[in-house]
This record gives sequence, structure tokens and C-alpha cells, in this order.
Amino acid sequence: MKHIFEINHPSLKSWVDIPSDSHFPIQNIPFGIFKTNQSSPRVGTRIGDFVLDLLKVAEADYFSDIQISKDVFNQSFLNDFMACGKKITNAVRLRISELLQDETKYDLQKYAENFLIPIEKVELLMPVKVGDYTDFYSSEEHATNVGTMFRDPENALLPNWKHLPVAYHGRASSIVVSDTPIYRPYGQTLPDSSKSPIYGASRLVDFELEMAFIIGKNNPSGHQVSTADAEEFIFGFVLFNDWSARDIQKWEYVPLGPFLAKNFASSISPWVVTLEALEPFRTESPTQNPTVLPYLQYEGMKNFDISLEVQLQPQKSENQTICQSNSKYLYWNINQQLAHHTVNGCNIQVGDMCASGTISGSSADSFGSMLELTWKGSKPLKMSDGSERKFLQDFDTVTMIGYAEKNGIKVGFGEVKGQILPSPKK
Amino acid sequence: MKHIFEINHPSLKSWVDIPSDSHFPIQNIPFGIFKTNQSSPRVGTRIGDFVLDLLKVAEADYFSDIQISKDVFNQSFLNDFMACGKKITNAVRLRISELLQDETKYDLQKYAENFLIPIEKVELLMPVKVGDYTDFYSSEEHATNVGTMFRDPENALLPNWKHLPVAYHGRASSIVVSDTPIYRPYGQTLPDSSKSPIYGASRLVDFELEMAFIIGKNNPSGHQVSTADAEEFIFGFVLFNDWSARDIQKWEYVPLGPFLAKNFASSISPWVVTLEALEPFRTESPTQNPTVLPYLQYEGMKNFDISLEVQLQPQKSENQTICQSNSKYLYWNINQQLAHHTVNGCNIQVGDMCASGTISGSSADSFGSMLELTWKGSKPLKMSDGSERKFLQDFDTVTMIGYAEKNGIKVGFGEVKGQILPSPKK
Repeated sequence: MKHIFEINHPSLKSWVDIPSDSHFPIQNIPFGIFKTNQSSPRVGTRIGDFVLDLLKVAEADYFSDIQISKDVFNQSFLNDFMACGKKITNAVRLRISELLQDETKYDLQKYAENFLIPIEKVELLMPVKVGDYTDFYSSEEHATNVGTMFRDPENALLPNWKHLPVAYHGRASSIVVSDTPIYRPYGQTLPDSSKSPIYGASRLVDFELEMAFIIGKNNPSGHQVSTADAEEFIFGFVLFNDWSARDIQKWEYVPLGPFLAKNFASSISPWVVTLEALEPFRTESPTQNPTVLPYLQYEGMKNFDISLEVQLQPQKSENQTICQSNSKYLYWNINQQLAHHTVNGCNIQVGDMCASGTISGSSADSFGSMLELTWKGSKPLKMSDGSERKFLQDFDTVTMIGYAEKNGIKVGFGEVKGQILPSPKK
Repeated sequence: MKHIFEINHPSLKSWVDIPSDSHFPIQNIPFGIFKTNQSSPRVGTRIGDFVLDLLKVAEADYFSDIQISKDVFNQSFLNDFMACGKKITNAVRLRISELLQDETKYDLQKYAENFLIPIEKVELLMPVKVGDYTDFYSSEEHATNVGTMFRDPENALLPNWKHLPVAYHGRASSIVVSDTPIYRPYGQTLPDSSKSPIYGASRLVDFELEMAFIIGKNNPSGHQVSTADAEEFIFGFVLFNDWSARDIQKWEYVPLGPFLAKNFASSISPWVVTLEALEPFRTESPTQNPTVLPYLQYEGMKNFDISLEVQLQPQKSENQTICQSNSKYLYWNINQQLAHHTVNGCNIQVGDMCASGTISGSSADSFGSMLELTWKGSKPLKMSDGSERKFLQDFDTVTMIGYAEKNGIKVGFGEVKGQILPSPKK
């Protein structure tokens, strides 16, 4: 059997016609859950502008020499698939690559009309059942910006920030897939001019540009995952929009952290891009100074060069890029995040999701939130329809796009999109 | 059909022999999950010193006039049972009461030997699959103690505390049932004498005496639950020990709240006592001043008079009561907690768990944590074996007990117990 990384080779071509700028060439082969008017939710992959129905592929016995039950593909979430382990899921991904290559001993093409569904005919669903969701705070630029605005520009980073990847638990139940509408939250805020809090719709709704990794292997309570072993436990990544209500956050978050400011919704992209597909895009992490404790030290390249972009579209206006960032800026990498998360013996389970925290770069157009882009509303963004934005308005649509690129091949996530709707009447 | 509350009447007696001080008289009828050497995990109730196998009761058609599938009792968690809705679950509880009453038209007694299993022969399992877990901070005495110790005695409560029930999200995966061993966590701490953090086993492991309610009904995103409707969504309660590592907490928790200090483990009691069983024990809540915003206002008695006790047992020594508290002290009640949790449209799902936060009273022997009982270690507890405790030592066992009592009838939770074990070797 070929090595799993060979299927990343840029010279590989597919018999499926793939647009040249597609995020989903044969080198990607992500996993997701979809349904159609004719079919129940099931596992699929994406190739160009098509979804390949992996239940049908399994039923046609193309995976029969891999130790995987067909039933694993007939599920509403990827959890059972991921739980098969990387040996199996990598073998499935390798086989899919072989099935889709232009020179292949397999004959999947004869089923193309039945197994390949145009993307516009499918509904993409939540890819995983999220057990626990953790949000890190791993961008130095973001933490510095927030610290500068809200605390002290001279001491923007708190004392613990460079010693550990700060994180907190978030809400799993309200993580939704791209294209799910987002209701503007109501809540309590303390206006600057007031001594008492007021109740009403949040006026400072924001996005946060993040990526998230998904756990594909259980680890029991009382046992640590080392930085060296962390990748065994990470199945893949999605784009993650951590919607935030800044006015609610400001009033509620001391001393126990953000709660209602965050838990009304987070949105993710529908395709889980595997860690293996991102291998060619590894890059160095930022230098860490001071030196971290031994359990956070690591060897090798643990960051990924993934271009990230945020677009904002006011209602009845055009889409406008407002942020260009990159996941390689993250100060704390995923190996360190997972080692820290489990250093105390916290167990992890298949389907757990860990988001990076807002990914900001050093230039003002690379900041990953409205809070930073408009510097707390003091520098409103000018939109092409003549309007201004300090924070998000009702009917604004936020789209995040992410892809890695090398040798003319893009391996991408597609997008995560969400529109802010007014709260249902209270 | 009788009203569900009639089965709380103190004059009701069962044909099962029940010790006079039992937490599980016929007025209780809690729900839980158990297995035996002979049987798979399934739903049961507790009566005196016996577990009644509800799968067998269902299979013998005693619930046949209630619209509930027998399969709901043949599960590893109560989630499917709770999701049937209160109309059904209350009818089941009423029927169980009728089956166990001493003057009854039913003939369950003929199956007693087969259906009733002595408690020492069963293994009690996690009663629910926890979706999301939220920890509130609702005891004024606890928040005041913590604020006095760590911040400013003159301004012990933070400005938001009396305006909203402060809460944060915790870890669902590490909630375990009573009698599960608890491993002392490793982690990063910043000793007082040090400029740089160190790595090692936590030296300040603590318990927190809490209660938790369990969600029995879904509510969709974007929709609030009012204080008036909150109880429709609350299935019942358990005792909750929110194990904490104070030294890890101190170093990590600013600005995003506690994370590794808490997520290594929380322990719950195995029997879910229904809201309906606790009806006779309702009591007034503490007066709230200042007046809360309208969405947090409520009518009726929303606190519960439940006696709580914490016992500490060093290895090879005797069990010793170190705290006596009561859930009626809580400043914020469950209706307010749930209304606040959903005010922003955060969805809730069957199996979600919301803990109260440490329940302390006003007297020093009613404080619900070692942190408060020993006042940050400055007043060590004297143990009967001559040893002292500032925080928990390896092999210490903590037991929490909770019950309501009226007219000589106790409706109780039994206990939640956990022993601290040394961390596995690192």
C-alpha cells in the first residue's frame, strides 16, 4: 500500500473535472456529512464541485479490504468514522485517492453519475457531534490587541500568557454548520454612562476568525498526551467563527470568563480537512521567549501555512474582504495546546473540538475581529455601499475562507458563512 | 390518575422494608442507571436498600398503559427516558409509587425476589450522558469569602455579582459517578516566591460542595426560557463535587476563567432526584437587593431546604464531618439560572447539567470548600487521627451527603464520594 502522504503529490490528477482554483483537488479529500432530497445523512468527501457519496462507495465494496463497517458511513456524524483510528481512516482516504486518480485500476467512473453529486444539490450538515468544546487564546497579536485596548498598553499580555496556552471551555450545543442563521443575542450590559445594567439586544456583535481541530481518539482520565504524541489524537481541522457579543462580555466576564457573550453560537465549515492533507504546508512556529516548561516543548514544524480571509457583506450590497490573516501566526501550536489540555489528566474524547482563538497578524488589515479591525469602534470600516461598520449589523453576512497553497495546488476548507438576524421578538 | 404530588404524602408506606432513616422512602423514587454481574446497564429506581429494575417492570407490562417504549429502560443513560417529557416520566414515577405502596391493586410483590436487587449487589453508573456542563457561582457567602481572601474585603463581591448569576462552562467529559477515584492533577503553578512558573502535582487540591440540575427538555437556539417556564425543563438534581486545584487555578484563571484547575474531574451522586419529589421542601430564597432585571424576576418559592454535609476521611482513619450547609442559602435560584443561561438564545439539550457553585452558609462550619474552611490554609482542620488538613492529601476520601426532611420523612440523594489518588507516574 502506498504511504498516505504520497497522495498529496502535486502531480496527481483526477478524472473528475476540477476547477483550477478549487479548494478540493484530489490532494485534499476532506470528510463531511451531507444529505440530499433523495438520501439520508451520510459520510461524503468533496472533489472539485462534487460530493462523493462514501456510503455508496462502501456498498459497492471498494473498501472491502479495509477493516471498516459500511455502517460507519451511514451516520449523521463523523464520530464513528474518526473512532476507527488513523490506520483505517488514512487507508480510506488513500483508497478514495486511488479511486479518483486519472490512471487507476479501479472502475469508479462507471458509477460517477450515481455516486458523484453536484455540490449545489446537497445539504451539508454538522460534520461531528461535538462532545466538549475548548477555545484557546493562542494568537499573540490578538491577545496583545485586546490587552492594549482593555487593560494596559505597557503590559498588554497578562503574566501567564507566554507560559501556557490560555484556554476556557465553551458551549458545544450551539456550534452550528456554515449557513446557519445567527440570532443577535439579548442580554445584560452595563452602558458606560450607567450605574445599573440594562437589558436589550447586544449592540456589539462581532466575529472571531479561528481554526479548530477535532479529536479523533480517546484518552482516559489521569493520562497526559505529550507534544510528541498529540497528532495521533487530532483527526483534522475546520474553520471556526466564534461569534461574540462584546458588550455582554465586558459586563459578565470577570472573574470566571466569557459565558453568554459566546455561547449563543459558533459556526464551523462543513468539511473536515485531515491533518494528513495539510502535511505539505507545515511551517515553523514563532519563536517562544521565555522558554516554555518541558511538557510544552516540541520538535519539528507544528504550525501550518493556511491563508485566512474574512469577508463582510451588508444586506443588498457586495461582499468585501476586511481581513487577511494566516494560521502560521499562532504563537501556541496544536501540539502544545493538546499537551497543556491534558497535563492535568483531563480526558479527551472523539468529537471534542479545540479552537485556536482569534488569529490576528501584525498588520491592521490582518486582525481577526471587528473589535480589533475598528479598534473598539474608533476606526469604523468603510463599506463599498457607503455605510460604516463598527460592529456587525442585522442582516450582515460574514464569510471566512481558508486554504493552503503550494505548487499551484490549493488544499482548502471552503468557507464558513453566517448571517446575523434580528433576535426573535421578546 | 392521581396527581403526581400526592405520592409525596408522608403517610404513604411501602411493602418494601425501608430503614427509618433511609434517603429512599416511597416518597422519593429517584432514577438512575445500574448493572449487576448478571445484567447490562439499565434504568432503575431506589427503594430503601434495594434497586428496582425498571426494565423488568416494563417488560412485565406494568407501564403498558403509559406511552413509553420498553427500550427506554434498556439504556446506559437516562437521556432517552428524560426526553419522553414530564407527562410520561411523572406517570412512570406515579406508577412505581402505586406498585410499591402497601395497599395496592398491583401484584409486583410476586416478582420482588427477581425485580428488587439488594443495593450491595449492584454497580451504580453515570445516570446521564452530559451534553454541556455549566457551573454557576450562586452562593453569596462563597463568593464573598473568595473575594475577601483573594481581592478586597471591602469590595468582596464584584460589581456584576448581584445583577446576574455568574457562570462559566466546564468540562462534561470528566464528570464521573460517585466512587470513581480522582487523580491528583499535575500542572503549572506560580509559587509565591518565584518569578517563573513550575511544573508538578497540585499541592492545593480541594472539593466544592454543590448541587446540579439536569435538563430534561430541549430548547432551540434563539429562544429564551422564562423564570416561569424554567421548571418544565428541569428533570431533577444530583449532588455535585466540583474538585478544584487552587494553585493551578490562581495562575491560569485570568482573564478567561478556570480551566485545568477544574476539568480533571467532577463527581456526582448516582440517583437523580426529581424536581417533583422535592416539592414539599420548597422554601423562600434570600431577598435580592438590588432588584434584578425583569427577566430574572420570579414568583413563588424557588429554593429548596436540602441539608448538605461534607465528610473527610484520611486513609486508615475515621470519617469526620467538616461542613454542614444547606441549598436554601443560594442567592440565585434555578429558575433564575436557567432564564439567564438562555436569555441570549443559547440552546439547551436533554442531559445538560448546571451546577450551583459552592454552597456555603454564613457560619464558618458551613463553608463548602477547604479553601474557605481553612481560610486559605491559615486555619488547618484538626482531624481525629491527630493530623491536620489545609487542603486534601493523597488517599483522603471526601463524601457529600444531601437530604430534605419533613414529618419524619427524608427525601435524599445518598452520597457522592471520591478518593484522591496520587497522579500516575509522569
